[in-house]
Amino acid sequence: MNCANQNGEVSETRNPDGTLRLRNPNIENLKEDILYHLALSTVSHDLVKMFGDVKFVCMGGTAKRMEHLAQYLQSEINYELPIGTSLCDLTEKSHRFAMYKVGPILCVNHGMGVPSIGILLHEITKLMYHAKVKNPIFFRIGTCGGIGLKEGTVIVAKSVVDEMGNTFHTQKICGKVVQRPAKLDQQLVKELTSLRKSDDTFNVVEGVTMCADDFYEGQGRTDGAFCDHTEEDKVNYLNELVKRGVTNIEMEATAFAALTHYAGIKAALINVALVNRLNGDQVTTPKETLLEWQNHPQILVGRYIKKVLRSETLV
Amino acid sequence: MNCANQNGEVSETRNPDGTLRLRNPNIENLKEDILYHLALSTVSHDLVKMFGDVKFVCMGGTAKRMEHLAQYLQSEINYELPIGTSLCDLTEKSHRFAMYKVGPILCVNHGMGVPSIGILLHEITKLMYHAKVKNPIFFRIGTCGGIGLKEGTVIVAKSVVDEMGNTFHTQKICGKVVQRPAKLDQQLVKELTSLRKSDDTFNVVEGVTMCADDFYEGQGRTDGAFCDHTEEDKVNYLNELVKRGVTNIEMEATAFAALTHYAGIKAALINVALVNRLNGDQVTTPKETLLEWQNHPQILVGRYIKKVLRSETLV
Repeated sequence: MNCANQNGEVSETRNPDGTLRLRNPNIENLKEDILYHLALSTVSHDLVKMFGDVKFVCMGGTAKRMEHLAQYLQSEINYELPIGTSLCDLTEKSHRFAMYKVGPILCVNHGMGVPSIGILLHEITKLMYHAKVKNPIFFRIGTCGGIGLKEGTVIVAKSVVDEMGNTFHTQKICGKVVQRPAKLDQQLVKELTSLRKSDDTFNVVEGVTMCADDFYEGQGRTDGAFCDHTEEDKVNYLNELVKRGVTNIEMEATAFAALTHYAGIKAALINVALVNRLNGDQVTTPKETLLEWQNHPQILVGRYIKKVLRSETLV
Repeated sequence: MNCANQNGEVSETRNPDGTLRLRNPNIENLKEDILYHLALSTVSHDLVKMFGDVKFVCMGGTAKRMEHLAQYLQSEINYELPIGTSLCDLTEKSHRFAMYKVGPILCVNHGMGVPSIGILLHEITKLMYHAKVKNPIFFRIGTCGGIGLKEGTVIVAKSVVDEMGNTFHTQKICGKVVQRPAKLDQQLVKELTSLRKSDDTFNVVEGVTMCADDFYEGQGRTDGAFCDHTEEDKVNYLNELVKRGVTNIEMEATAFAALTHYAGIKAALINVALVNRLNGDQVTTPKETLLEWQNHPQILVGRYIKKVLRSETLV
């Protein structure tokens, strides 16, 4: 596979000016492309005017967190809104996702699980294409269960595995099983982890993130509505994961890594651990503390975005 | 497997008084059970007082649709709220799902895809257990792509298959592949389809509902951000589905059918077709018409609920 090329060369996924080429020849022949779950379309909206200046797309699970993230980044990059205006949900009519725009930054929630983020990745990638966005960078800023890590620790994924240890994303397409490598940009991993400051109250580690298709049994938890496995099975499974180098478990990683990689989009997966699974299954920490921990990954991403925007101003 | 028994007999999943027995012995030994994605707990909330009178749980994809459904059912069953009050989201603090209660009816959204509805089913099943609800009935009221059916048609699923034609839900638990039969209550299918009235503007059919893990490639669509298959592959695949009797495609059916069946909970899956996939991939119908079509399944479920409540009053 010929991957994204940021140096102005033609590739399977990129034009010389940095705009995307889609791995789907059908889209350019559509009279109208309706991004159904975003309630946007190439006919009803001027997508270039609305989104042409986007450089960063930040994704996370909940709509509320993405609204807060947009407000946080607005303040971080000193993005002023005209008096009498406030941020609004650009995809409100869809009733599916919530999307906020702060200058060059798009913040959009993806719900829970691979199928949900898969829908968003298809439509956001097409949005980047229609809007003629140049060299966008995608972030997933999420929450996860850590394995042997202190709660509040930020894990920047250097690689991704599924529940069976596979390093690819498996899909069924027209009755065939298709596997796509789940790969992340290693340079971006280094850049993000280097942005931790010595007086930060939280740690930042590079990790191997496991993607599960379930929160309860699929992550070995013994506190779901069903549990046919024993505490010993769980402990053995978690220890097996530790042996494989897995640092944390969430529910979107394989699709996020594989679909951005296939689209030739530079992407990073940054999760904060809300629980140490070696100590228990339940998330018992008060909501206020959880919300504070959820700020940790966005602090790192905010620093990265500011650094890139500063370097572009200096050029 | 010993399934639910509505006749007051002891079964693996039911006590003589109709309350649930969980297939997880760990839960009764927990000091506190935190239903994390519902922002409810056995310590911070009196779940019996809050939810003990529930008889029906209606689930659907979006929070907005579930709010409208609650308002619709409130009017249908003549459920009066005290002056100066309105329905509120009982799980607002979770930022994950939205849940409304109208007397014996709970309306809660499940997001998109199997992992998302899986989380909800674990926590709602535990909620029914903790609240000592007797013989609850679950409905999924959803939207789907129809195959050869007129848009607006309601499909009551008599059976469920996955993308490969399997009639079970596949999960990976502690490194093992686990398959659970995806079965629905056949009597409930008959009762629901019989509730269509001759002057209804929409048709109601019994069907075979396919559950896909993706909206685009996973349903054979050729209008995603990626498409490595041809129009011919798609047509062949859809024709193959027709041969197998598949009437419609959505993204939650296997988990919904399998997990309710495993819990011994009577459940029905009622979808409305927003597009006829034999005519195209995109959902081009105006939002207003789509919202009107989305009322069709809830009309049927409303009639069922009223019938049950009336029969209980007469007893």
